[in-house]
Amino acid sequence: MKSIPAIVIHGGAWAIPDRMSQSSHQGVIQAARVGFQILDRGGSAVDAVEAAVMCLEDDPVFDAGTGSVLNADGQIEMDAMIMNGSGLELGSVACVKDIKNPVNLARKVMEESDHTLLVGEGANDFASEQGIQRVPPETLLTAEAKKEYDEYVKFKTAVNISFRARSDAHDTVGSVAVDSNGNTACATSTGGITAKRPGRVGDSPLVGSGGYADDHVGAASTTGHGESISKVCLAHSCLHLMQEGDSPQAAAESSLISMQRRVQGNGGIIAVSHNGQVGVHFTTERMPWAYISQNEMHSGINPGDHFIEKL
Amino acid sequence: MKSIPAIVIHGGAWAIPDRMSQSSHQGVIQAARVGFQILDRGGSAVDAVEAAVMCLEDDPVFDAGTGSVLNADGQIEMDAMIMNGSGLELGSVACVKDIKNPVNLARKVMEESDHTLLVGEGANDFASEQGIQRVPPETLLTAEAKKEYDEYVKFKTAVNISFRARSDAHDTVGSVAVDSNGNTACATSTGGITAKRPGRVGDSPLVGSGGYADDHVGAASTTGHGESISKVCLAHSCLHLMQEGDSPQAAAESSLISMQRRVQGNGGIIAVSHNGQVGVHFTTERMPWAYISQNEMHSGINPGDHFIEKL
Repeated sequence: MKSIPAIVIHGGAWAIPDRMSQSSHQGVIQAARVGFQILDRGGSAVDAVEAAVMCLEDDPVFDAGTGSVLNADGQIEMDAMIMNGSGLELGSVACVKDIKNPVNLARKVMEESDHTLLVGEGANDFASEQGIQRVPPETLLTAEAKKEYDEYVKFKTAVNISFRARSDAHDTVGSVAVDSNGNTACATSTGGITAKRPGRVGDSPLVGSGGYADDHVGAASTTGHGESISKVCLAHSCLHLMQEGDSPQAAAESSLISMQRRVQGNGGIIAVSHNGQVGVHFTTERMPWAYISQNEMHSGINPGDHFIEKL
Repeated sequence: MKSIPAIVIHGGAWAIPDRMSQSSHQGVIQAARVGFQILDRGGSAVDAVEAAVMCLEDDPVFDAGTGSVLNADGQIEMDAMIMNGSGLELGSVACVKDIKNPVNLARKVMEESDHTLLVGEGANDFASEQGIQRVPPETLLTAEAKKEYDEYVKFKTAVNISFRARSDAHDTVGSVAVDSNGNTACATSTGGITAKRPGRVGDSPLVGSGGYADDHVGAASTTGHGESISKVCLAHSCLHLMQEGDSPQAAAESSLISMQRRVQGNGGIIAVSHNGQVGVHFTTERMPWAYISQNEMHSGINPGDHFIEKL
């Protein structure tokens, strides 16, 4: 059965400052174009989400790959996941360093290993075996990430702030897609939260929390307060609602409301059904998002935004 | 509302050899007693599952804590999780070394950190901050684990065996409980699979895969082929069926059948509902299990076993 191909992108649900707003919005639009080109020429959903997320990782405005924030030790530790909805194949990495495109490494875990999640040095060693180049960490570091870390260090000496209360947290990027064969996929990537504890893993690389894809239903990718997302297995919950008949939009809204009620956490979801319906919702101040479906680019960043451009 | 307290234990779903069968069966019975003592005097479900899993970790017959198997580098790397169903509080650790009781460290993550999952050196550093003693790794190593590793090394030189095809894999221990206040909890702990790649994380510490607890429904803990369990978010799927009205037993059976059909994986589940109903099922050769409810100890290890002892 032929499906209508669609790709959806998010660039992280958080209180994005005005100075980063336009470049974040443009960044997700660009990633949607890159991913959709692959779908448009008959490529797979997995190839499309990987290419889209690599595009976001390479864009320094986003907290993933180049542009990742620094942990409490002043180091970059990145997490990523990819899932193929056709056979529920899955690959994730957490706490990897010195890798330009963690989503690409996650795909290697999915396709070239017997495991689904590799962390830390073991993941970096696997990268070397797979011929993935290690890059000098400073090539991933942006002035923005450095400044944020320096402010944290300065601020920390004055007040012992609660991690939960901080609003400067960056977040995940992600993509979901359905290809013309009805195959679905999701991918996420993140540098985590500034000054996180070394070894901290959020929701992004966790199956069912940061993302989930199942061709029988669709695919979802999440962003926001990682610990809240994990507690409610947000992506898996969203897909369950879709399986029970909700549209991707209704399921995204309902599962974010449930998360707010149950664990007082905010975030965002992008979702696609196996027949090409799209859902986008967030409960944070901002979330850059974009999707391409039926020759139209849809996008936004503030609540209520919905720009449409004919392609 | 007062509930009927119950605790359920499993000692790993795999092809347990005859020589370990009796001690595994006795081990889960002992852990059920330890955990139920806490429930019986009005203690919490979280305290009960933590105490039960610590008991399993300290029993060298099980692949968790003392008795953990060795990874491909000949080292012990352990994973654990604990979840409190009342507020969905959650703590997990992965790839930790030199810790006698990883479930205890997972509980510290849940209660003393802003995070839900810490891995590798970062988790070990957190353990030191929390005053959890590091133990010499050789104190966790058993002759059985060493022998299995040596056989793997010898065998590996002859045939490049597939990880998936191996039947000597050990697995997780776990516990679920409901206390007299209707609060639920789950806990898991594992040394993983002999000769696993360093940095490999299976399902055990992953929320929704290795375990899930939600007082609105109940709690589940899973065991078996970790990569399969992760692909279907087995614990979260089991709880979803319970939420839709299935008994814990029916939900455990249905979700294991679904996993077999979708990703050809085998495993086991223990589950409890918030009102004290119990479910136990496995699709592997053996799984030692035990539960205490209404003054009866129930247990078994082979398919069809169901021993009952009045307490």
